[in-house]
Amino acid sequence: MTWLDQVPWNEHGLVAAIAQDAASGKVLTLAWMNREALEQTAKTGQAVYWSRSRNKLWRKGEESGHAQKVREVRLDCDADAVLLQVEQAGGIACHTGRERCFYRKLDNGRWVETDPVLKDPAAIYREGSGKK
Amino acid sequence: MTWLDQVPWNEHGLVAAIAQDAASGKVLTLAWMNREALEQTAKTGQAVYWSRSRNKLWRKGEESGHAQKVREVRLDCDADAVLLQVEQAGGIACHTGRERCFYRKLDNGRWVETDPVLKDPAAIYREGSGKK
Repeated sequence: MTWLDQVPWNEHGLVAAIAQDAASGKVLTLAWMNREALEQTAKTGQAVYWSRSRNKLWRKGEESGHAQKVREVRLDCDADAVLLQVEQAGGIACHTGRERCFYRKLDNGRWVETDPVLKDPAAIYREGSGKK
Repeated sequence: MTWLDQVPWNEHGLVAAIAQDAASGKVLTLAWMNREALEQTAKTGQAVYWSRSRNKLWRKGEESGHAQKVREVRLDCDADAVLLQVEQAGGIACHTGRERCFYRKLDNGRWVETDPVLKDPAAIYREGSGKK
Protein backbone atom coordinates (compact mmCIF):
# COMPACT_ATOMS: atom_id res chain seq x y z
CA MET A 1 0.00 0.00 0.00
CA THR A 2 1.56 3.24 -1.14
CA TRP A 3 1.10 6.71 0.31
CA LEU A 4 -1.36 7.43 -2.51
CA ASP A 5 -3.53 4.49 -1.46
CA GLN A 6 -3.77 5.97 2.03
CA VAL A 7 -5.53 9.08 0.77
CA PRO A 8 -9.30 8.85 1.35
CA TRP A 9 -10.36 9.64 -2.23
CA ASN A 10 -14.01 10.59 -2.38
CA GLU A 11 -16.69 9.09 -4.60
CA HIS A 12 -15.36 11.15 -7.52
CA GLY A 13 -11.78 10.02 -6.90
CA LEU A 14 -10.84 13.44 -5.56
CA VAL A 15 -9.41 14.97 -2.43
CA ALA A 16 -9.74 18.61 -1.38
CA ALA A 17 -6.44 20.48 -1.48
CA ILE A 18 -5.91 23.62 0.58
CA ALA A 19 -2.95 25.80 -0.41
CA GLN A 20 -1.47 27.98 2.29
CA ASP A 21 1.21 30.59 1.66
CA ALA A 22 4.33 29.25 3.36
CA ALA A 23 5.56 32.75 4.18
CA SER A 24 2.44 34.67 5.24
CA GLY A 25 0.34 31.75 6.45
CA LYS A 26 -2.62 33.02 4.44
CA VAL A 27 -4.95 30.41 3.01
CA LEU A 28 -4.87 31.08 -0.72
CA THR A 29 -7.01 28.51 -2.49
CA LEU A 30 -9.12 25.42 -2.13
CA ALA A 31 -8.91 23.17 -5.16
CA TRP A 32 -9.20 19.47 -5.88
CA MET A 33 -6.75 16.71 -6.77
CA ASN A 34 -7.17 13.26 -8.21
CA ARG A 35 -4.56 10.58 -7.72
CA GLU A 36 -2.50 11.65 -10.73
CA ALA A 37 -2.56 15.30 -9.67
CA LEU A 38 -1.28 14.51 -6.18
CA GLU A 39 1.34 12.14 -7.53
CA GLN A 40 2.59 14.77 -9.97
CA THR A 41 2.53 17.44 -7.29
CA ALA A 42 4.80 15.32 -5.11
CA LYS A 43 7.02 14.38 -8.03
CA THR A 44 7.47 17.83 -9.55
CA GLY A 45 7.23 20.03 -6.46
CA GLN A 46 4.67 22.18 -8.26
CA ALA A 47 0.97 22.18 -7.46
CA VAL A 48 -1.07 20.17 -9.95
CA TYR A 49 -4.84 20.05 -9.45
CA TRP A 50 -7.84 18.45 -11.09
CA SER A 51 -10.09 20.99 -12.75
CA ARG A 52 -13.67 19.92 -12.13
CA SER A 53 -14.98 22.47 -14.62
CA ARG A 54 -12.60 21.52 -17.42
CA ASN A 55 -12.41 17.89 -16.38
CA LYS A 56 -8.66 17.63 -16.79
CA LEU A 57 -5.36 18.00 -14.97
CA TRP A 58 -4.55 21.60 -14.19
CA ARG A 59 -0.96 22.56 -13.65
CA LYS A 60 -1.47 25.66 -11.53
CA GLY A 61 0.07 28.58 -13.42
CA GLU A 62 0.11 26.90 -16.82
CA GLU A 63 -1.87 29.79 -18.28
CA SER A 64 -1.52 32.53 -15.70
CA GLY A 65 2.10 31.98 -14.76
CA HIS A 66 0.95 31.93 -11.15
CA ALA A 67 2.40 28.57 -10.24
CA GLN A 68 2.68 27.23 -6.72
CA LYS A 69 5.97 25.72 -5.60
CA VAL A 70 5.10 23.12 -2.98
CA ARG A 71 7.18 23.06 0.17
CA GLU A 72 5.14 20.60 2.20
CA VAL A 73 2.17 18.24 1.79
CA ARG A 74 0.05 17.21 4.76
CA LEU A 75 -2.85 14.79 5.06
CA ASP A 76 -5.72 15.15 7.49
CA CYS A 77 -7.26 12.55 9.75
CA ASP A 78 -10.37 11.63 7.80
CA ALA A 79 -12.02 14.55 6.07
CA ASP A 80 -10.57 13.89 2.63
CA ALA A 81 -8.15 16.80 2.53
CA VAL A 82 -4.52 17.63 1.96
CA LEU A 83 -2.79 20.84 2.99
CA LEU A 84 0.00 22.34 0.91
CA GLN A 85 2.53 24.90 2.02
CA VAL A 86 3.37 26.83 -1.13
CA GLU A 87 5.43 29.66 -2.54
CA GLN A 88 2.99 31.57 -4.72
CA ALA A 89 4.51 32.88 -7.96
CA GLY A 90 3.60 36.50 -8.63
CA GLY A 91 1.90 36.79 -5.25
CA ILE A 92 -1.40 36.08 -6.97
CA ALA A 93 -3.28 32.83 -6.41
CA CYS A 94 -6.78 33.78 -7.55
CA HIS A 95 -8.00 33.92 -11.15
CA THR A 96 -9.59 37.26 -10.29
CA GLY A 97 -6.10 38.73 -9.96
CA ARG A 98 -6.15 38.80 -6.17
CA GLU A 99 -3.63 37.39 -3.73
CA ARG A 100 -6.07 34.75 -2.52
CA CYS A 101 -9.48 33.40 -3.40
CA PHE A 102 -10.87 34.22 0.04
CA TYR A 103 -11.18 37.94 -0.66
CA ARG A 104 -14.70 38.40 0.73
CA LYS A 105 -15.47 38.71 4.39
CA LEU A 106 -18.83 38.38 6.13
CA ASP A 107 -19.70 41.72 7.67
CA ASN A 108 -23.13 42.35 9.17
CA GLY A 109 -24.98 40.01 6.87
CA ARG A 110 -23.15 40.72 3.64
CA TRP A 111 -19.97 39.66 1.86
CA VAL A 112 -17.57 42.57 1.66
CA GLU A 113 -14.55 42.55 -0.66
CA THR A 114 -11.47 43.25 1.42
CA ASP A 115 -8.63 42.39 -0.94
CA PRO A 116 -7.61 44.45 -3.95
CA VAL A 117 -7.18 43.19 -7.49
CA LEU A 118 -3.41 43.21 -7.99
CA LYS A 119 -3.48 42.46 -11.70
CA ASP A 120 -6.24 42.69 -14.27
CA PRO A 121 -7.37 39.14 -15.14
CA ALA A 122 -7.53 40.22 -18.79
CA ALA A 123 -3.81 40.90 -18.61
CA ILE A 124 -3.11 37.64 -16.79
CA TYR A 125 -4.92 35.52 -19.31
CA ARG A 126 -4.29 37.64 -22.40
CA GLU A 127 -4.03 35.55 -25.50
CA GLY A 128 -0.43 34.71 -26.20
CA SER A 129 0.79 35.42 -22.70
CA GLY A 130 0.03 31.88 -21.60
CA LYS A 131 2.74 29.65 -20.25
CA LYS A 132 1.40 26.51 -21.89
CA MET B 1 -30.78 37.65 -2.28
CA THR B 2 -29.17 37.15 1.10
CA TRP B 3 -25.52 36.41 1.88
CA LEU B 4 -26.50 32.75 2.29
CA ASP B 5 -27.87 32.66 -1.25
CA GLN B 6 -24.52 33.85 -2.54
CA VAL B 7 -22.74 30.76 -1.26
CA PRO B 8 -22.14 28.25 -4.08
CA TRP B 9 -23.68 25.25 -2.34
CA ASN B 10 -22.65 22.03 -4.03
CA GLU B 11 -24.93 19.26 -5.30
CA HIS B 12 -25.33 18.01 -1.74
CA GLY B 13 -26.19 21.49 -0.44
CA LEU B 14 -22.81 21.77 1.26
CA VAL B 15 -19.81 24.05 1.25
CA ALA B 16 -16.31 23.13 2.44
CA ALA B 17 -15.28 24.98 5.58
CA ILE B 18 -11.63 25.44 6.47
CA ALA B 19 -10.88 26.43 10.07
CA GLN B 20 -7.66 28.31 10.69
CA ASP B 21 -6.34 29.13 14.14
CA ALA B 22 -6.62 32.90 14.43
CA ALA B 23 -3.55 33.13 16.63
CA SER B 24 -1.07 30.65 15.13
CA GLY B 25 -2.33 30.66 11.55
CA LYS B 26 -2.30 26.87 11.50
CA VAL B 27 -4.98 25.20 9.41
CA LEU B 28 -6.81 23.00 11.90
CA THR B 29 -9.67 21.26 10.14
CA LEU B 30 -11.61 20.88 6.94
CA ALA B 31 -15.26 20.18 7.52
CA TRP B 32 -18.55 20.82 5.75
CA MET B 33 -21.49 23.13 6.29
CA ASN B 34 -25.00 23.21 4.96
CA ARG B 35 -27.03 26.38 4.88
CA GLU B 36 -28.32 25.97 8.42
CA ALA B 37 -24.83 25.27 9.79
CA LEU B 38 -23.39 28.41 8.22
CA GLU B 39 -26.34 30.50 9.34
CA GLN B 40 -25.98 29.25 12.91
CA THR B 41 -22.22 29.75 12.82
CA ALA B 42 -22.72 33.39 11.90
CA LYS B 43 -25.52 33.83 14.41
CA THR B 44 -23.87 32.19 17.39
CA GLY B 45 -20.22 32.93 16.73
CA GLN B 46 -19.41 29.26 17.30
CA ALA B 47 -18.52 26.85 14.50
CA VAL B 48 -21.42 24.61 13.51
CA TYR B 49 -20.81 22.03 10.79
CA TRP B 50 -22.76 19.39 8.94
CA SER B 51 -21.61 15.90 9.83
CA ARG B 52 -21.66 13.85 6.64
CA SER B 53 -21.13 10.62 8.59
CA ARG B 54 -23.86 11.26 11.14
CA ASN B 55 -26.04 13.20 8.70
CA LYS B 56 -26.89 15.96 11.16
CA LEU B 57 -25.80 19.34 12.43
CA TRP B 58 -22.62 19.15 14.44
CA ARG B 59 -21.92 21.87 16.94
CA LYS B 60 -18.15 21.58 17.11
CA GLY B 61 -17.25 20.74 20.70
CA GLU B 62 -20.69 19.50 21.71
CA GLU B 63 -19.17 16.21 22.84
CA SER B 64 -15.48 16.96 23.11
CA GLY B 65 -15.70 20.44 24.58
CA HIS B 66 -13.33 21.53 21.82
CA ALA B 67 -15.51 24.28 20.42
CA GLN B 68 -14.34 26.86 17.90
CA LYS B 69 -15.13 30.50 18.53
CA VAL B 70 -15.41 32.14 15.13
CA ARG B 71 -13.69 35.47 14.66
CA GLU B 72 -14.08 35.84 10.91
CA VAL B 73 -15.85 34.13 8.00
CA ARG B 74 -14.56 34.46 4.44
CA LEU B 75 -15.92 33.21 1.13
CA ASP B 76 -13.82 32.19 -1.84
CA CYS B 77 -14.22 33.10 -5.49
CA ASP B 78 -15.81 29.96 -6.87
CA ALA B 79 -14.49 26.77 -5.34
CA ASP B 80 -17.32 26.26 -2.87
CA ALA B 81 -15.40 27.07 0.28
CA VAL B 82 -15.51 29.27 3.34
CA LEU B 83 -12.58 30.08 5.59
CA LEU B 84 -13.02 30.59 9.32
CA GLN B 85 -10.62 32.27 11.70
CA VAL B 86 -11.21 30.54 15.01
CA GLU B 87 -10.14 30.41 18.62
CA GLN B 88 -9.80 26.71 19.34
CA ALA B 89 -10.97 25.68 22.80
CA GLY B 90 -8.52 23.40 24.57
CA GLY B 91 -5.98 23.81 21.78
CA ILE B 92 -7.27 20.58 20.26
CA ALA B 93 -9.22 20.53 17.01
CA CYS B 94 -8.85 16.89 15.95
CA HIS B 95 -10.87 13.98 17.26
CA THR B 96 -7.58 12.09 17.59
CA GLY B 97 -6.63 14.46 20.40
CA ARG B 98 -4.17 16.43 18.31
CA GLU B 99 -3.98 20.19 17.77
CA ARG B 100 -5.01 19.86 14.14
CA CYS B 101 -6.24 17.22 11.74
CA PHE B 102 -3.28 17.74 9.40
CA TYR B 103 -0.85 15.86 11.61
CA ARG B 104 0.76 13.77 8.87
CA LYS B 105 3.41 15.05 6.50
CA LEU B 106 4.57 13.51 3.25
CA ASP B 107 8.22 12.55 3.64
CA ASN B 108 10.01 10.49 1.00
CA GLY B 109 6.96 8.62 -0.15
CA ARG B 110 5.27 8.04 3.16
CA TRP B 111 2.99 9.88 5.58
CA VAL B 112 4.85 10.63 8.78
CA GLU B 113 3.07 11.70 11.97
CA THR B 114 4.60 14.95 13.15
CA ASP B 115 2.14 16.16 15.77
CA PRO B 116 1.73 14.59 19.21
CA VAL B 117 -1.52 13.44 20.77
CA LEU B 118 -2.23 16.05 23.43
CA LYS B 119 -5.11 14.24 25.04
CA ASP B 120 -6.27 10.63 24.84
CA PRO B 121 -9.43 10.50 22.71
CA ALA B 122 -10.88 8.02 25.21
CA ALA B 123 -10.64 10.75 27.83
CA ILE B 124 -12.08 13.38 25.50
CA TYR B 125 -15.12 11.35 24.59
CA ARG B 126 -15.50 9.44 27.86
CA GLU B 127 -19.10 8.67 28.65
CA GLY B 128 -20.56 11.32 30.85
CA SER B 129 -17.96 13.93 30.03
CA GLY B 130 -19.90 15.10 27.02
CA LYS B 131 -21.07 18.66 26.69
CA LYS B 132 -24.36 17.76 25.06
